Amino acid sequence: MTTDSPAYDGKDPVFALHVGGKMETIPTVPLRDRDDLSMAYTPGVARVCSAIEADPDLVHELTWKRNVVAVVTDGSAVLGLGDIGPEAALPVMEGKAVLFKHFAGVDAVPICLDARSVEDIVETVVRIAPGFGGINLEDISAPRCFEIEKLLIDRLDIPVFHDDQHGTAVVVLAALRNAARLTGRGLRDLDVVVSGAGAAGVAVTTILREAGIGNITVADRQGVLHLGREALTPVKRALAALTNGTGKTGSLVDALRGADVFIGVSGGVVPEDAVASMARDSIVFALANPSPEIHPDVARRHARVVATGRSDYPNQINNVLAFPGIFRGALDVRARAITEPMKLAAAEALAAVVADELTEDCVVPSPFDARVAPAVAAAVAAAAVRDGIARR
Amino acid sequence: MTTDSPAYDGKDPVFALHVGGKMETIPTVPLRDRDDLSMAYTPGVARVCSAIEADPDLVHELTWKRNVVAVVTDGSAVLGLGDIGPEAALPVMEGKAVLFKHFAGVDAVPICLDARSVEDIVETVVRIAPGFGGINLEDISAPRCFEIEKLLIDRLDIPVFHDDQHGTAVVVLAALRNAARLTGRGLRDLDVVVSGAGAAGVAVTTILREAGIGNITVADRQGVLHLGREALTPVKRALAALTNGTGKTGSLVDALRGADVFIGVSGGVVPEDAVASMARDSIVFALANPSPEIHPDVARRHARVVATGRSDYPNQINNVLAFPGIFRGALDVRARAITEPMKLAAAEALAAVVADELTEDCVVPSPFDARVAPAVAAAVAAAAVRDGIARR
Repeated sequence: MTTDSPAYDGKDPVFALHVGGKMETIPTVPLRDRDDLSMAYTPGVARVCSAIEADPDLVHELTWKRNVVAVVTDGSAVLGLGDIGPEAALPVMEGKAVLFKHFAGVDAVPICLDARSVEDIVETVVRIAPGFGGINLEDISAPRCFEIEKLLIDRLDIPVFHDDQHGTAVVVLAALRNAARLTGRGLRDLDVVVSGAGAAGVAVTTILREAGIGNITVADRQGVLHLGREALTPVKRALAALTNGTGKTGSLVDALRGADVFIGVSGGVVPEDAVASMARDSIVFALANPSPEIHPDVARRHARVVATGRSDYPNQINNVLAFPGIFRGALDVRARAITEPMKLAAAEALAAVVADELTEDCVVPSPFDARVAPAVAAAVAAAAVRDGIARR
Repeated sequence: MTTDSPAYDGKDPVFALHVGGKMETIPTVPLRDRDDLSMAYTPGVARVCSAIEADPDLVHELTWKRNVVAVVTDGSAVLGLGDIGPEAALPVMEGKAVLFKHFAGVDAVPICLDARSVEDIVETVVRIAPGFGGINLEDISAPRCFEIEKLLIDRLDIPVFHDDQHGTAVVVLAALRNAARLTGRGLRDLDVVVSGAGAAGVAVTTILREAGIGNITVADRQGVLHLGREALTPVKRALAALTNGTGKTGSLVDALRGADVFIGVSGGVVPEDAVASMARDSIVFALANPSPEIHPDVARRHARVVATGRSDYPNQINNVLAFPGIFRGALDVRARAITEPMKLAAAEALAAVVADELTEDCVVPSPFDARVAPAVAAAVAAAAVRDGIARR
C-alpha cells in the first residue's frame, strides 16, 4: 500500500508493528507480597505523600516526575498530514515517547488533546502539569503554537519545549556550525535565506540570530519578508523587523542569488537554477518531509554541503538528535525551563560530536551515534546551572 | 519515623524505595536502526495515522489506547491524609498505576490535576481522553466525585470508574455474598447498617440495593439517615429515600441493635457493646484505614465474620481485588463504559474465587491469588457483551 491509501492492511509490517501500540508502563519496584505492597502502596506510601506535602520540592526526588515528560499535541499539524485530530495523532506521539526513552532514558506519555483554542490547550496543560517533569509540545499548528508555548513557559516551573520549533532549530544550527567550519567561514560572515515562516522557520531564524549569523532573510510563499510588505501577520512582521538587514525584496529565488546558505522548512519547491545562483561553496538544507524543496542529488551539483530530513541521504537533520538529550539534561538538574542558552549549548555540543569526522557528507552525527544524547545532555545541564534555573 | 512525622528520612526503606519514582515507560517495539525508526516513527507511522483518521475505531487496535488507563486525582481526599494536593498525591497514583500493571497487565498513567471545580476537572479529563482507553478516578472528595463521575460517563465513550466508590463496593459485595453463604442466609434476609455517607458509603449502598439486600440503613456522624432528618445534603436525601425501609431513627448504635451486618466506611468508632447487640452470627466489615471502626480482635468476640482494610488481619477488603480485573475485562472487549451489571458480575466472580475455601477467615481471596484478576476480567467482559456496550 502507498502513503496515499489510508486503509488498514494487516499484512503491511508497519501496521503489524503497531497492533496494541508501541509502549507500556511498568513498575520499577517489587510487588511480590504484602510487605512490598505496604511499602509501594498503603500504608507506607502515606509517609512519602506527607513528606512531599511538607516540602513540595521532594516531588522531584520521590516520584517519577523526576524523569517523565508529557508529549502534548492537539493533532493539528501532524507530520506532513496536517490536521488529523488527537486520536489519529496518537501513533506519532507514542513514537516520540519511545524515542525519548530509547535515546535518553526519559519516560514519556502521549497526551492527545481534544481541545483547539489557545486558552483551552494552555489551561489543560497547566492542570495536568503537577504529574510531569517536563512538557514537550508536538505538532501544534502555527501561529497558535507560539502563544501556547509562551503562555505555558510563563505559567509553569518545569521545562516546556515545542520540538517542531526548537528541536529543528538546534539541529539546524549544529549542522550549520559544522558546514561553516568545513567551508572555512565564520557564522558572522554567512548570508542565510530561510524559506518558511511557520513554527520551524521562526525558531530557526531566532536561534540563528542568537548564534550571531551575519545576515538572515526569511521568505514565505509570497516572497521575502520585509517591513514594506503589506498584510503581514504579527509573527511575520516581527520576523521582518528582526531580519533582512540588507533590505532584500522580491521572491525566494531573488533572495537566493549570491546567498551562502538556504534553509528550507516550507514544503515549497526551489528550482535548480536558484541553487546554482548561490555563492561558491553554498550550503543547502532542504528539510521539507518527505519531499525536500530540491532533491539532494540535484542540489549537490551546485552546493558544497546538502542536508535533508531524509534518512536515505547523508546529513539527516533529525530532531531526535536534539530533544532526548535536551530533556535529559534539563531533568538531570531539575531545570525550571529550557532557556535560549540551553538550546545554543545543545547545538554546540551536537556539532562537536562530529569533530574530526567532519566531511561534506557528515555535518551532523547519525541518530544512532551513542555519544549524541549524553553530550547534548551534559551541555544543556551545565547551561541550566550557569543560567541559574537548575534546582540542583 | 512515624506516620505523624512528614520529614524525609533517607534511611527509611519506604523513602529509599520511592527515590526516582515507582514506574517507567518502555518501548515494546525495536529501535535498533533506521529501518526500525522508519516503521515506528516517520515515515511509516503516517500510514497508521491516516488509517485511524479514516476509521477512528482503529485507535483501539493500533495504539496503546487499547490498554492504557489514566489514574486521575485532584489530591483532595488521599488515603487518610485528606486534601494534600496533586503533587503530594502522586506517590499514591503511581502506586495505583503499578498495581494496574502488576495484577492485570493494564498500563496506567498518573494524572494529578491542579484543578478543583467540578467543571474544570471534567473539562480537563474530557480533553485528555483521546489518548486513554479508560479513566480511573481516585481520591477525589465527596460530593464532587459523584457529579464528576456522572458527567464524565455522560460525555466519554470509554470506561470511567471512581475506584474509591465502586472498587470498594464490588469487594464489599463479594465479601458479603460469601459471609451470607457461610452463615446460611440469603442476601434478601439481611439487615445491613452502613456507617458513612461519603464516596464509599454511597457506592456500597447502591451496589447492595442492586444485589437485592433486604434492608439497608445508612448512618453518618449525626446518626441514621431518614427523610424526617433536617438539613440533609442532596446526596444524603437521595440515600435516605432509597434506604431505611424499616424506618430506623436515632444513632448508629441504635441502628445496630439486632442488625445482621455492619459495614463501616466512615472513620468513626463503634463501641464493643454495639457489636454485641447485633443479631446472632453477625457480620462486621470495619473498613476505616489505618484504624478500623472497631479492632478486629474485639469485634471477633461477638461477630461470626470480621473483615477490615488491614493486611495484617484476615479478610482484607482491598480494592486491588477489583479494579485491575474490572479494567482488564472492560479493555479486552473495548467496552464503552463500566455498567452496573459489570460491577455486579465482578463481585460475583470475585466471591466465587473463594469457593470451597470459604471459612470465617476467608470470605475474600488474597490480593496475591493469581486467579482473581482473570476471573473478574472474564466476568466483566462477558457482562459488557451482554449489556451491548462492547465494541467487540
